[in-house]
Amino acid sequence: MKVSVKVPATTANIGPGFDCLGMALPIYNTITIEETVLPGTGVEINVISEDDAVDEMSIEHLSLNENSLIYKAVELLYNSIGQTPSELKINVHSNIPIARGLGSSASVIVGGLIAANELLGRPADEAALLSIATEVEGHPDNITPAIVGGLVISSQEDDCTVVYRKLNWPDEWSITVCIPDYELSTDISRSVLPKEVPMSDAVFNAKRMAMFVEAINTKDAELMKLALQDKLHQPYRMKLVPGLEKIIANLKHEDNVIGCVLSGAGPSILIISQKNNLDKIHSIVKETWADLNVKAVIKSLNVENNGAQVVSLSE
Amino acid sequence: MKVSVKVPATTANIGPGFDCLGMALPIYNTITIEETVLPGTGVEINVISEDDAVDEMSIEHLSLNENSLIYKAVELLYNSIGQTPSELKINVHSNIPIARGLGSSASVIVGGLIAANELLGRPADEAALLSIATEVEGHPDNITPAIVGGLVISSQEDDCTVVYRKLNWPDEWSITVCIPDYELSTDISRSVLPKEVPMSDAVFNAKRMAMFVEAINTKDAELMKLALQDKLHQPYRMKLVPGLEKIIANLKHEDNVIGCVLSGAGPSILIISQKNNLDKIHSIVKETWADLNVKAVIKSLNVENNGAQVVSLSE
Repeated sequence: MKVSVKVPATTANIGPGFDCLGMALPIYNTITIEETVLPGTGVEINVISEDDAVDEMSIEHLSLNENSLIYKAVELLYNSIGQTPSELKINVHSNIPIARGLGSSASVIVGGLIAANELLGRPADEAALLSIATEVEGHPDNITPAIVGGLVISSQEDDCTVVYRKLNWPDEWSITVCIPDYELSTDISRSVLPKEVPMSDAVFNAKRMAMFVEAINTKDAELMKLALQDKLHQPYRMKLVPGLEKIIANLKHEDNVIGCVLSGAGPSILIISQKNNLDKIHSIVKETWADLNVKAVIKSLNVENNGAQVVSLSE
Repeated sequence: MKVSVKVPATTANIGPGFDCLGMALPIYNTITIEETVLPGTGVEINVISEDDAVDEMSIEHLSLNENSLIYKAVELLYNSIGQTPSELKINVHSNIPIARGLGSSASVIVGGLIAANELLGRPADEAALLSIATEVEGHPDNITPAIVGGLVISSQEDDCTVVYRKLNWPDEWSITVCIPDYELSTDISRSVLPKEVPMSDAVFNAKRMAMFVEAINTKDAELMKLALQDKLHQPYRMKLVPGLEKIIANLKHEDNVIGCVLSGAGPSILIISQKNNLDKIHSIVKETWADLNVKAVIKSLNVENNGAQVVSLSE
């Protein structure tokens, strides 16, 4: 039996929502799991990139880090029904840039998990998939939208269940993803965050999160401009993302720009704007990074409202 | 000329919303300002309590602390148009319990300010009133609902303007205010808060604020139960409010209870619930406090959707 699952990229944090806001984007990885015929062959994982942007180093990085994440996710699922995975061939067709803050690791965890779940006759429901995937990834902000799609608030509660709610992204607003040609590992990007923060910064972000949800619900761009500010992660990560500060400054006077934030742990940058004059935004980002010798891929996208999908299944 | 302004009580914080969530309640103070005929008589402030619950000590407390707040608010308004207040008689008819976490100081600041604004021919618009009143009070969470009514997210921005949005409290949910017979000054209640908090607590509250707004917008009681949790102020203030921990524990198994939180800086307690079985909630709170020799007034109320109103005006 062979199952293929298509999983969207995700952008997390989105300003004030460190570790709880995430959104699916229309860039996909496809994870295929095939039961091999020869017994005792173990689990083999291969990565095939169909995107030139994924270079050799990235593939190696994926092999070293993300393979173990897929394996861990698949193993946890098998263990949950008292089995151990073996005789599996896992292929990752990678289109989501790696170590760029676009949820590539969440996508392979989710893809592996859902494909294995199909192979096993769906022993895990959505809640169990969310819970296992979050256990492997460490936090639910990329995992939840990768599974359910859309813009999502999510939280792992004390009993390990993941609670989430979907919000409706306003059609009027565009999402521009700016992906530089350098990588930034989530581990490094997490290591610069302090263990304690000023109370005033905690209050600042709590307030912005309230504003964020209200701005989304009422399509209020003025409120969203205030809501997209953050004091919990972005200021600490600024120095790890050359060009971010300048890009924010250079976009400041563009009327159509609502906000410019890190995508996940970076280094990709997310720009929320009205849908007019997107070319101007693209060229400002491109030129600012070019001054620093950074090449970038820049795409204006819609939200992907579907989460991971089984795209093919054969006996 | 003589102006009377009726101002609602307010409850702030409401779980995760430390310093930014507030809601107006149908308990009122009336602040009257009269221009006296004799020149050079200065500003005289009197407090008249029509509520037995307001004892002599409270009146004194009001005279010492809140009189100066009213005066400061009125003075700032006069100064903003190049004048100084004099020949004014200010009467406060006090029905809002003092130093109980129900916004009595916000109400007298707002009442004094709006009455003076009427006397002067309305030089200040809503934005200016919000900004002056917040300057006197220190934070906008009680001030904003006292001025605009309803349930409000508010934030004082760097330029001192107060940004706010009203949320619609679900009609299905009841608000029970439990007011003990002891006072707790906001200064003491603020002094126990740390200057720094764990990053995980900051993330916890930001997430709860997102849940709070979404739960209000979608009338989602299950989400609201999670949303009403707080790690930024309530745990630190628990010891200043005898009975709170026990009341929370004793309400835990009541199906109709959505949450039990401090009102503002305490010591009043706010219980959010479905509208059935309110008597049971009242008796649990009453009995728990009675065991600690605390008497209490307990009222189930609706939100007051109107803010401060001019109720009489005479030449």
